[in-house]
Amino acid sequence: MSRTLHLNAFLMSTGHHEASWRLPESDPLAHLDIEHYIRLAQTAERGRFDSIFFADSPVLQGDPGRRPVGKLEPTILLTAIALRTSRIGLVATASTSYNDPYNLARRFASVDWVSGGRVGWNIVTTAGADAARNFGLDDVPDHRLRYEKAAEFVDVATKLWDSWDDDAYIGDKELGIHSDSDKVREINHVGEFFRVAGPLNVPRSPQGYPVLVQAGSSDDGKGFAARYAEAVFTAQRTLEDGRQFYADLKDRARRLGRDPDTVKILPGIVPVIGDTEAHARELDDQLTNLIRPEFQRRALAERFNLPVEALDLDSELPADLPTEEEIQGAKSRFTLIVDLARRERLTVRQLIARLGGGRGHRTFAGTAEQVADTIAEWFTDGAADGFNVMPAALPSGLDIFVDRVVPILQERGLFRTEYTESTLRGHYGLARPENRYRVAADAAIAQ
Amino acid sequence: MSRTLHLNAFLMSTGHHEASWRLPESDPLAHLDIEHYIRLAQTAERGRFDSIFFADSPVLQGDPGRRPVGKLEPTILLTAIALRTSRIGLVATASTSYNDPYNLARRFASVDWVSGGRVGWNIVTTAGADAARNFGLDDVPDHRLRYEKAAEFVDVATKLWDSWDDDAYIGDKELGIHSDSDKVREINHVGEFFRVAGPLNVPRSPQGYPVLVQAGSSDDGKGFAARYAEAVFTAQRTLEDGRQFYADLKDRARRLGRDPDTVKILPGIVPVIGDTEAHARELDDQLTNLIRPEFQRRALAERFNLPVEALDLDSELPADLPTEEEIQGAKSRFTLIVDLARRERLTVRQLIARLGGGRGHRTFAGTAEQVADTIAEWFTDGAADGFNVMPAALPSGLDIFVDRVVPILQERGLFRTEYTESTLRGHYGLARPENRYRVAADAAIAQ
Repeated sequence: MSRTLHLNAFLMSTGHHEASWRLPESDPLAHLDIEHYIRLAQTAERGRFDSIFFADSPVLQGDPGRRPVGKLEPTILLTAIALRTSRIGLVATASTSYNDPYNLARRFASVDWVSGGRVGWNIVTTAGADAARNFGLDDVPDHRLRYEKAAEFVDVATKLWDSWDDDAYIGDKELGIHSDSDKVREINHVGEFFRVAGPLNVPRSPQGYPVLVQAGSSDDGKGFAARYAEAVFTAQRTLEDGRQFYADLKDRARRLGRDPDTVKILPGIVPVIGDTEAHARELDDQLTNLIRPEFQRRALAERFNLPVEALDLDSELPADLPTEEEIQGAKSRFTLIVDLARRERLTVRQLIARLGGGRGHRTFAGTAEQVADTIAEWFTDGAADGFNVMPAALPSGLDIFVDRVVPILQERGLFRTEYTESTLRGHYGLARPENRYRVAADAAIAQ
Repeated sequence: MSRTLHLNAFLMSTGHHEASWRLPESDPLAHLDIEHYIRLAQTAERGRFDSIFFADSPVLQGDPGRRPVGKLEPTILLTAIALRTSRIGLVATASTSYNDPYNLARRFASVDWVSGGRVGWNIVTTAGADAARNFGLDDVPDHRLRYEKAAEFVDVATKLWDSWDDDAYIGDKELGIHSDSDKVREINHVGEFFRVAGPLNVPRSPQGYPVLVQAGSSDDGKGFAARYAEAVFTAQRTLEDGRQFYADLKDRARRLGRDPDTVKILPGIVPVIGDTEAHARELDDQLTNLIRPEFQRRALAERFNLPVEALDLDSELPADLPTEEEIQGAKSRFTLIVDLARRERLTVRQLIARLGGGRGHRTFAGTAEQVADTIAEWFTDGAADGFNVMPAALPSGLDIFVDRVVPILQERGLFRTEYTESTLRGHYGLARPENRYRVAADAAIAQ
C-alpha cells in the first residue's frame, strides 16, 4: 500500500441520528454507561480503525425531553477506554475558550501517558452564547478573536509539552540524581491572552504532542487548520464540494510551508447499511419516522427567531426569514439549514428529517459494497484521506461497518488488515514533533 | 461494630519519603506508570480501605534533580483505577483557584458515573506564587480571599450537581420522550467570583455529590472544613495535638448546625513497619541515609531567604532567621519547620532527616502491633475517626500495612473485614445529599 485510508469512528451515545435512542436495540442511558463506549471502541479496534472520537461542548446541548443530552467528560471517557483497548487512537474535543492551557496541556499529556501514546486533541473555539454563560460571560466572544486566542492557546500548550526534554530522565539511584534539571525549563510565555510560566508538571509524553485535530470550516477555521491541524474532520455533502475543500486546505498548508501530506482530511459520512439498497432505505425511513417533528419545529422556530406557528410542517420555510446577521448563535449552521431547505425546496417536515440524520454531514443509505465504493471514490478522487464514520445507530451501525465495509476496503488494498504501529501518530503516518527547546540547545552546542 | 475506623491510602509515586525512589525496590519512573498506581489501589482494596487519594497542585513542585516530580492529572488516574477496582473510593485534589466550577463539577460527576459512585474531591485553594504564575497571575491571591472564592466555588459546584433531579429520566421510546425537561434547570448563579448559568451537561451522578474532603488547618481552613467537609485530612504530630484538633473541628461543625459525625477526621501517619522495633528503626535509618542533604540545604536556604553558606549541616539553624511576615510562599509551613528545629534543637542535618520522611506528618517506626496500637489509641481517645496512611516507601509500605496491620485492626473489631457498601459515601457512612431544587419543588406542592 502506498497511500492508505484512515478511518475514525465518531462515537455518540446511541448514534448520530437524533431519534436513534428510540430504536428497539438502543439503551436510552447508553451515554452514561462507560461499558457501552468501551464496547464500541473495542469494535472499532477490531476493525483496525485509526481512532475513535468524542465531540464536546461545556454546555447542555439540546432539549432533555427529546433525546439523551448529557455527556461524560471526554478525557475521562478516553482514559477508561484506554484501559480496555491496546492500539486504537483516542481523540477528544476540548475548547480553547473555556479551558486554561496549563490544565488542558497536562490532561492530554496524562492521557497520552496512560494510553501509551494514543491521544489526539480536537481543537475547538466553542460557538454559542449558552456555553459562554457557563463561564461568566454574557455572550460568546467574536469569531476572529476566538481563533486568535485558539492560536495562542496551541502555542502555549505546545511550549508546555516541550518544557521537558525527552531525555531529561537520568535515574541514578547511587548518586541520588533523578533527572537533569537543565533539561526541564520554564516557558515564560507572555502573550495577548495568556501568561504561563511553566514548566508543565508532566514530563514529555510518548507522542510529544497529542495529534492535533481541527473541524472548523469557516475561513478562519480553514486558516487555523492549515497552520496547526494534523487531521481535519469536515462536513462535505457532495464529491465536488469535498474535492474543492480538500484542494483548498492542502494548498493553504503548502503555502504555509507544510508538507500537505501531514494534514489528513476526513469528511464525515453517516452510513445506513442494508443487505440491499431497498433495505438500507427502509432502515433510513425507520429512523426518520421516529423523529418527533414538533420538537424540531420548536427548535427551528427558536433558531429563526419566529413564533412556532410561523412554521407549517407541510409547507416550505416562510419567505421572510431573518438574515444571518440578525440571528444570535451559530450563524454558519443557520445559513447551511436555510440553503439546504431553499435549494431542495423542502417542507419543514422534510427539512427536519434531513437534519435529524447527520446534522449536515452526508448520510449515505446503501449496501456495504456501495458504501465502500463511495469511500474508495472519494479517497482516490482527491476528496479525502479517510473518513470520519458517524453511524446513525450504535452499536449496530458500527458493527455492520466493521463486519461488512472494512473487509471490502481491506480486500481492495485500501485499508490496513493489522495495526503496524502502536501510537495514534503512527496510525496516521505523522512524525513525532521535535522539541523546540531541545533543537535550540543542540544548535547552541554546534556553534 | 458501633463506630468503625476509616482508612485512606495516600498514594505518591515511590512513597512519601523523599528518598524512597532510591530504594532497591523502587521504580524511579513509577509516577508515570498507570499500572503501578492500579496495583497500589488493588492492594488497598484487598485491605478493605475506604479510599485511595492523590494530592495535587497545577505546578511542578520541587527539583527534578532530587526526586520524581511530575504527576499525571489525578482525575485521569482515578478513572484508570476505577476500571480495575470495584469497591474502593477514589479521592483527588483539585484547586478552586485554578479551575472553572463548570468544568470541575462535570469532571468529578463523570468520574462518579464511571466508577459507580466512588469519587471524592479534596478541595484546595492552592498556595504558592509558582502555581499562580501558570495561570496569568504574578502572585497567589490573599489567603482569606482564596477561601471566600473556594466557598462560592463549592456553592456553584453543588448547585450544578443538583441541576438535574435524580428522577429526570423517563425513557419512553414509544412516545419519544427521553427525560422530563422540567426536572433539569438552569442554576443562574451570580456571585462575587462566578457567574454560571447551567444546567450541568451530566445528569446527577450516583452519589449526588462527590464526598467533599478538605485538608487545610489554618483558621480559615478549619472554618471551611467545619462548613463543607465530610472528611478531613490533617497533620497532627502528637496525640494531644490530635485530640485538640479533633475536638475543635467537631465543635465548629456542631455550632454550624451539622451532626459532627458527618465530618470524619483522618490524621496522617507515615508508618515504617519492621519485624521488630529495631528492624523498623533500621528501615527508617536506611531511608534517612538516602537523603542528599545538599539538595535540601539549598531548598531550606531558599525558604529562609539566606545564602546557602549560612546553613551549616552540623549546627542548629542561625539565630537571626526572617520572620513569617518577611518570607514569601508557604508561611505556616515555614513556621512549622522553624518551630520543630528550635523545639528539638536539631542540627540542619537532623532537621533535613526529619522533614524528608513525611513533610510534617507523624512518622511512626515500629512493629505492626505497635502501629495498630497507636491507631487504636488515637481512634478510641478522641483524636481520629481513622487514618490517612502515607507509606514511606511504595509498594512495600502499603503491602506490609495491608498484610500485617489491617488484620490486627480487624481482629480487634475496629475495621471492616468485607465491604458492606458500594459507594465512597457508603464506606464513610455519609448520606447521599438531598437535591436542593427537588426539595423546593416538593415544598411547593405541599403548600
